[in-house]
Amino acid sequence: MDPKYVFVNNTFLAEDKASLLVSDLAIQRGYGIFDFFKTINGKPIFLEDHLKRFYNSIAKMHMEIKQSPDELKDILQDLQQVNDIPDSGIKMIVTGGYSEDGYTQPAKQNLIITQTPFIAPTTFSANGISLATYHYQRPLSEMKTIDYSMAIWLQPWLKEQKADDVLYQHGNVVRECPRANFFIVTKNHEVITAKNNVLHGVIRKNILGLRGAGFKITERDFIMEELQNASEAFITSTTKHILPVKMIDQVPLPGDGAVTQLLADLLLQKVKAQY
Amino acid sequence: MDPKYVFVNNTFLAEDKASLLVSDLAIQRGYGIFDFFKTINGKPIFLEDHLKRFYNSIAKMHMEIKQSPDELKDILQDLQQVNDIPDSGIKMIVTGGYSEDGYTQPAKQNLIITQTPFIAPTTFSANGISLATYHYQRPLSEMKTIDYSMAIWLQPWLKEQKADDVLYQHGNVVRECPRANFFIVTKNHEVITAKNNVLHGVIRKNILGLRGAGFKITERDFIMEELQNASEAFITSTTKHILPVKMIDQVPLPGDGAVTQLLADLLLQKVKAQY
Repeated sequence: MDPKYVFVNNTFLAEDKASLLVSDLAIQRGYGIFDFFKTINGKPIFLEDHLKRFYNSIAKMHMEIKQSPDELKDILQDLQQVNDIPDSGIKMIVTGGYSEDGYTQPAKQNLIITQTPFIAPTTFSANGISLATYHYQRPLSEMKTIDYSMAIWLQPWLKEQKADDVLYQHGNVVRECPRANFFIVTKNHEVITAKNNVLHGVIRKNILGLRGAGFKITERDFIMEELQNASEAFITSTTKHILPVKMIDQVPLPGDGAVTQLLADLLLQKVKAQY
Repeated sequence: MDPKYVFVNNTFLAEDKASLLVSDLAIQRGYGIFDFFKTINGKPIFLEDHLKRFYNSIAKMHMEIKQSPDELKDILQDLQQVNDIPDSGIKMIVTGGYSEDGYTQPAKQNLIITQTPFIAPTTFSANGISLATYHYQRPLSEMKTIDYSMAIWLQPWLKEQKADDVLYQHGNVVRECPRANFFIVTKNHEVITAKNNVLHGVIRKNILGLRGAGFKITERDFIMEELQNASEAFITSTTKHILPVKMIDQVPLPGDGAVTQLLADLLLQKVKAQY
């Protein structure tokens, strides 16, 4: 395959040349934000939602980039053209940038945009995943920061638990997975997802948007006991759409997954309307 | 001034050429650790303590570097020779490195060593600083990670508080500053510093080592009320040694700073014995 191109600040570079000086605040202090969307048949999916959240993360982290959303869209189109990967994931990162003393803001932020081949799921996979709960609250949880220290650090622990992913809880309140939102379905078919101190995912938003379609979907904090009494559970993310959860802390969920499957089908229709 | 050199993996590079590919896990996921020590008159201060903590952070974060401590010491000497900055700060960073998918370990870690001019304080500054408390617990707090997202993010807030630095508290328990340990001196001249969920600083360790010198110094968790009743307070760090704190959340500390000054003088003797 031809080398992929990466956009860095104002230019397209071959990926083996796309670098940042080590003085960048991402390397010095783990400071940065990103967003990630997919393209299917060359069409960006839910792009407006991702751009809105991207600029929101930048502003709330006291950073800035010189490109307006429209200018950024032009760059994204150019990147797709030079790379020619119709089915892809596109990641936009803004790093803390070059600071005088490696700590103090203001710094000159760096913008990086990468594109990698990625095939989005176009059908629902009924094969569920297993989650292991862990006590942790993501800091600055409403911005999509690059801070995944805990998730990376937990990887060996996850293997020990024989689980596919972590589910964070904080003071008995259920939050989210490191890269996905989490939903339960109660025995009364109510669908619930955490409201506070979680990242507001784009797929999550689309699921909440199905409230009109005959589902009772509630955005509120809920505790471990409610999770333990749930019938079904699933996670949502840009790369996974909806994935059913079959097991929490090695305890199987009792439901047949029917509500999860209905929501997944409706979500896939929304995604298909985008390409 | 001549350009400074930076050591990256196995070679010395001019600082404007010292870079990492954007696929490094530090940039993608904020994953990395570091340590920082100073040199005075070309002599590294408390080097063994810093190296011990450095390798401990690497191992506990499930990372590795190929250099042994002795090989690393040779590299540090070479770096000092090429740069010729007798009074300096030397920072060793190990980043998460290049991972197949930008998330999953194992990855190939990167080692970066930078040196910058820095004059360590050689006398005690009685001018105190002011701190503003903030509810936060540093994750993975016993490793010296690059995760300073909260500290960088709080900078505009700190300005609003007219404070020099943040003091983290968690559930009413006093912890540490982002880059310094924190001590109080009670009205009975007992010196106390937090024991758990803080970074164990090298200067902190040296202060605890003064227990034999007629001071009652205790390592235990303490709560905000004890801080509010304290007579003196100070912070410790490699760059600051001991700095008295004159104000917490805009309330002055009542003491005359005599115990802080005694400890600072004894610490300076320990530092001077190193060069």
